[in-house]
Amino acid sequence: MKINLISDTVTKPTPEMLNAMFTSEVGDDVFKHDPTVNELEAKVAAMFGMEAALFFPSGTMANQTAIKLHTQPGEQLICDKYAHIFNYEGGGVSFNSGVSCRLVDGDRGMMTAEQVEEAINPPDFYHSPLTTLVCIENTANKGGGACWDFKELEKIKAVCEKHGLKYHLDGARLWNALVAKGESPKQYGALFNTISVCLSKGLGCPVGSVLVGSKKDIDRAIRVRKMFGGGMRQAGYLSGAAIYALDNHIERLHEDHRKAKEIGVVLDGLSFVKSVEPIETNIIIFAIDEKLITQEQFLAKLKENNVEIIGMGQGKLRIVTHLDYTDNMHNRFISILKSL
Amino acid sequence: MKINLISDTVTKPTPEMLNAMFTSEVGDDVFKHDPTVNELEAKVAAMFGMEAALFFPSGTMANQTAIKLHTQPGEQLICDKYAHIFNYEGGGVSFNSGVSCRLVDGDRGMMTAEQVEEAINPPDFYHSPLTTLVCIENTANKGGGACWDFKELEKIKAVCEKHGLKYHLDGARLWNALVAKGESPKQYGALFNTISVCLSKGLGCPVGSVLVGSKKDIDRAIRVRKMFGGGMRQAGYLSGAAIYALDNHIERLHEDHRKAKEIGVVLDGLSFVKSVEPIETNIIIFAIDEKLITQEQFLAKLKENNVEIIGMGQGKLRIVTHLDYTDNMHNRFISILKSL
Amino acid sequence: MKINLISDTVTKPTPEMLNAMFTSEVGDDVFKHDPTVNELEAKVAAMFGMEAALFFPSGTMANQTAIKLHTQPGEQLICDKYAHIFNYEGGGVSFNSGVSCRLVDGDRGMMTAEQVEEAINPPDFYHSPLTTLVCIENTANKGGGACWDFKELEKIKAVCEKHGLKYHLDGARLWNALVAKGESPKQYGALFNTISVCLSKGLGCPVGSVLVGSKKDIDRAIRVRKMFGGGMRQAGYLSGAAIYALDNHIERLHEDHRKAKEIGVVLDGLSFVKSVEPIETNIIIFAIDEKLITQEQFLAKLKENNVEIIGMGQGKLRIVTHLDYTDNMHNRFISILKSL
Amino acid sequence: MKINLISDTVTKPTPEMLNAMFTSEVGDDVFKHDPTVNELEAKVAAMFGMEAALFFPSGTMANQTAIKLHTQPGEQLICDKYAHIFNYEGGGVSFNSGVSCRLVDGDRGMMTAEQVEEAINPPDFYHSPLTTLVCIENTANKGGGACWDFKELEKIKAVCEKHGLKYHLDGARLWNALVAKGESPKQYGALFNTISVCLSKGLGCPVGSVLVGSKKDIDRAIRVRKMFGGGMRQAGYLSGAAIYALDNHIERLHEDHRKAKEIGVVLDGLSFVKSVEPIETNIIIFAIDEKLITQEQFLAKLKENNVEIIGMGQGKLRIVTHLDYTDNMHNRFISILKSL
Repeated sequence: MKINLISDTVTKPTPEMLNAMFTSEVGDDVFKHDPTVNELEAKVAAMFGMEAALFFPSGTMANQTAIKLHTQPGEQLICDKYAHIFNYEGGGVSFNSGVSCRLVDGDRGMMTAEQVEEAINPPDFYHSPLTTLVCIENTANKGGGACWDFKELEKIKAVCEKHGLKYHLDGARLWNALVAKGESPKQYGALFNTISVCLSKGLGCPVGSVLVGSKKDIDRAIRVRKMFGGGMRQAGYLSGAAIYALDNHIERLHEDHRKAKEIGVVLDGLSFVKSVEPIETNIIIFAIDEKLITQEQFLAKLKENNVEIIGMGQGKLRIVTHLDYTDNMHNRFISILKSL
Repeated sequence: MKINLISDTVTKPTPEMLNAMFTSEVGDDVFKHDPTVNELEAKVAAMFGMEAALFFPSGTMANQTAIKLHTQPGEQLICDKYAHIFNYEGGGVSFNSGVSCRLVDGDRGMMTAEQVEEAINPPDFYHSPLTTLVCIENTANKGGGACWDFKELEKIKAVCEKHGLKYHLDGARLWNALVAKGESPKQYGALFNTISVCLSKGLGCPVGSVLVGSKKDIDRAIRVRKMFGGGMRQAGYLSGAAIYALDNHIERLHEDHRKAKEIGVVLDGLSFVKSVEPIETNIIIFAIDEKLITQEQFLAKLKENNVEIIGMGQGKLRIVTHLDYTDNMHNRFISILKSL
Repeated sequence: MKINLISDTVTKPTPEMLNAMFTSEVGDDVFKHDPTVNELEAKVAAMFGMEAALFFPSGTMANQTAIKLHTQPGEQLICDKYAHIFNYEGGGVSFNSGVSCRLVDGDRGMMTAEQVEEAINPPDFYHSPLTTLVCIENTANKGGGACWDFKELEKIKAVCEKHGLKYHLDGARLWNALVAKGESPKQYGALFNTISVCLSKGLGCPVGSVLVGSKKDIDRAIRVRKMFGGGMRQAGYLSGAAIYALDNHIERLHEDHRKAKEIGVVLDGLSFVKSVEPIETNIIIFAIDEKLITQEQFLAKLKENNVEIIGMGQGKLRIVTHLDYTDNMHNRFISILKSL
Repeated sequence: MKINLISDTVTKPTPEMLNAMFTSEVGDDVFKHDPTVNELEAKVAAMFGMEAALFFPSGTMANQTAIKLHTQPGEQLICDKYAHIFNYEGGGVSFNSGVSCRLVDGDRGMMTAEQVEEAINPPDFYHSPLTTLVCIENTANKGGGACWDFKELEKIKAVCEKHGLKYHLDGARLWNALVAKGESPKQYGALFNTISVCLSKGLGCPVGSVLVGSKKDIDRAIRVRKMFGGGMRQAGYLSGAAIYALDNHIERLHEDHRKAKEIGVVLDGLSFVKSVEPIETNIIIFAIDEKLITQEQFLAKLKENNVEIIGMGQGKLRIVTHLDYTDNMHNRFISILKSL
């Protein structure tokens, strides 16, 4: 039994999802003739109470498109220093949009409204880039799957309105936050200009993200997606999986969260574990005492037991629970951990 | 019976292809753990005798990535005035790479080596952009599916070498050219720095293109694909279709070509048809006499008969044959045409 | 006596202009504290009846800034195939703005309104770049200093308004056109969104161009100029020359035009000259019969006589008259030409 | 008597410099025919022991060009969080080069080699931008004119070589550092790939910066400058000032430094001044206790006395001494300060 906990992106479709995929009706989505893609886009837009939605081959492309929609080259966006868009999208913000990131020193990937306001450049001081966009990531991946306080998100929205800034949500793991906090997509739809949500990760689809926003923004997004080369033909097979997942895989995220917390408790009791960051969803970030055991040694020990997790450097490690991490695997992993 | 001849991108997988997709082994391709994607990439690289290959969600992204690999912002590429990369990739050449296109007035989308050489800017005249890349499209879509003379491609290669230019092939419909001219992928692999080939269109896959090139270029291409957001997770379902198509759908392109030529003969005999461009593969471009019948009238008449083709403006129309255009449909379409 | 006719950019300030420069009051223009720069900008804006103006180190930067103001990356502008912005600004349109050029096959650098309208991409066809800008160059340098028919410029303006396009004038040699046609700057100010005018060339200043437009556009232009690094400190020395030239050097352009026409007449009478393009201002483009004398031989012969002109390749040559081309030089050059 | 201490960029040429400017021999530098520009470029290259140099209208353009030379879009550079290129060049790094900045939390604008090495992204982790360039600013403007320890610069060079990174110096106020530390330009020329030096600021020229580097880099820099629109015609007038300043104004920077230190001593003795940052050159950054006097009140008080300095926000203020800050002004300013 191999236990892969490096990310929630490694899941494979369940038989039911696979069946949904391959019985999907398809068409050429470049001509907007794919009924399943159209259905998915309408469904997600409705969930968020927003006007329109667009399917993308990846969350990176959905985010990059949103950033392009809301900025002109030379402008600056504000995000937390842990933000995925700055750290893990290949430098795309500057490559695709010519935009720089003003990084805020937040807490586990989460900024306060006050910090955001301080980070805005004075608009009449033309030596500094013009600030035009604030980007949030919920849950915050590098922050250990941390969930934002919705009230703070509302306060940041007020800052955006006061200063005429756009507001984008990278919702790569928004489903986890919604489930963990008992929030609704519509709350978020009412707050942000655009939201990207991932269908892979917790929902277990093989491929795809959706960007939701106003009709006007999504119409422009099609052009941007075209330039990136994100237009796909019979994408309905991928959208079919997504529709299935939205209907069947959201509530079960509670399972992933429960398992993550249980792992956290065990980790906390291990002598060589220095600290475990608060666990709110399906991501566990913890630090080991490298004087007792190095990261390499620890990863090697797990590998002997057919377990894979990810080292983040400087004694920090990450575990992610997901759809393919079964109860059996969980019991086995817990006992492996206890035996170390 | 609906007959859709607007493009060869509208095809849907055959049951056999769907089965191949369905039963593909998959993994997370972002970590390069998807065995079917890896198999496809190795297979296409081997077909062209090139070092490496990379799977893309679209031919546009494969082309745009290649252009980025071979240029620095501010430089200029040379292509025919009909080139897809200039006309139909959303302005991506300038958006993604900051590069301008020097358009050559070729014949049905095909330039001569002499024309290419004349279009090169003098490298020491810094007021003009530095020419660094030549792009070919074979078959030439807007040229009516025209096939290049391989000897001319070799002459252009010599020009590239003489002037230190890179050489990229947009092979969106290269399979059609190979079949029509009895050429081999390896001939092309020996000539170009990079080649994009489409798995949709004639081959009938739902999604995807592959870029082939040197190991070094493809390693850099992964970074570019990442920035565009073209990295997909369990892309093996899409690659599975491609492997099936490469094994089973290349030779049958002869069928599409035969049908196209037969349609051409009928068109040629119609009183209101002014001219039919030479038909070498699966694309038919023809002009009607708008004094006798307007484009709108002609398209409406076909629509009454459940036939869809595309009007290109100024009295020009385009028909494309493909995998889903059956013999039955062909017979019906021929008789519809004759009855007009 | 050396006679340099390669361009009107080679002129050196007259003693009077040098004195005006020398005695200009200056300040730090980056803080907008340079009174002479401020005076120049106000003066040019008033001449054109436009709201605001900005001083630039070059015409290229003024044009590139205007193009950036009016476009988003990925969009397309329309210009003549001879346009300076496409041919001689280093590929800057794509480098700085991510924009592509749709080249129109005009007459001596001048398009018709009909040609412009045909070149507009359909705005709902997202595979082609969105057309958003039309750029004119008056006089047309590569067109032999040709002057546009103002009525055609008005018709193009109507096309721009109909299709929601911006309209920029590269007025590198607009002063020549104004003088040749008896037109006023205000006519042009009423037509275009932005106009760049050069202070070097015919006006004889050492450095500088001015961009005029709406207050809103010019406010944004300061940011773009900053990013290019076009903000200069005590630029008043350069602006002082410009104010002098605007007051004293416009009317004398008639002299340059007269001399150019006289040279044209002589050229026309030479056996080895195949053709002389119409001469409207200070540029003479003519073709020689390379069977009788090659470009290299002809240029060498002139050089023996201390005359420099520019070869444009393929038997075409260019002569430009200017402020430093004295009557003495003119008489000498005419007799040299006649003796060939 | 007005005392302007907002920046060392506000200086006006001395009569001797003005005379040098206006007796300069000039030509068209776009054709590389301006003898004074050529002389200046050769002179600065020789001073730094580097192969070639290029004149620019501003330090921003010189820096932006260097960054473009050393990077491809999507890559990342490392600099201190106070760096001028990130904070005060209008977002140009991302606009012009598509590059992002990894900011290091240094001390008064100065990083350690260890911090630089930690900030390098792993080159085989393609989700993060590829690190390719390190940028230094000496003296560090926002760091209060702080001078780098040359040994640390050498250690950073070793890090660059180990990891294949380029190394650029923003020498906007390098002359101040050279004078303050008794260093030579050649030391710096041996260390960096490119260096920009400003001729305005401490040297007192009206306009201009020079970029020095290898012949190959400077040849490419001409193309980049062209695209920005930084090519000027008779730029010799500006270069003439620069040659004069290099011969006559370097040693006198000691004066500015002495005055700055004397101001610092007085500030230190004022009750409402909380702290004065170490003063090494001509910049004084100090903090006031806003409970005793607000920034606005303090600036207003100075203004009453015809003194202008700059408020940096949050109780921090900046004073810069320079060529036009005479001994008389100095005595007056000291007594004004003491009287507050």
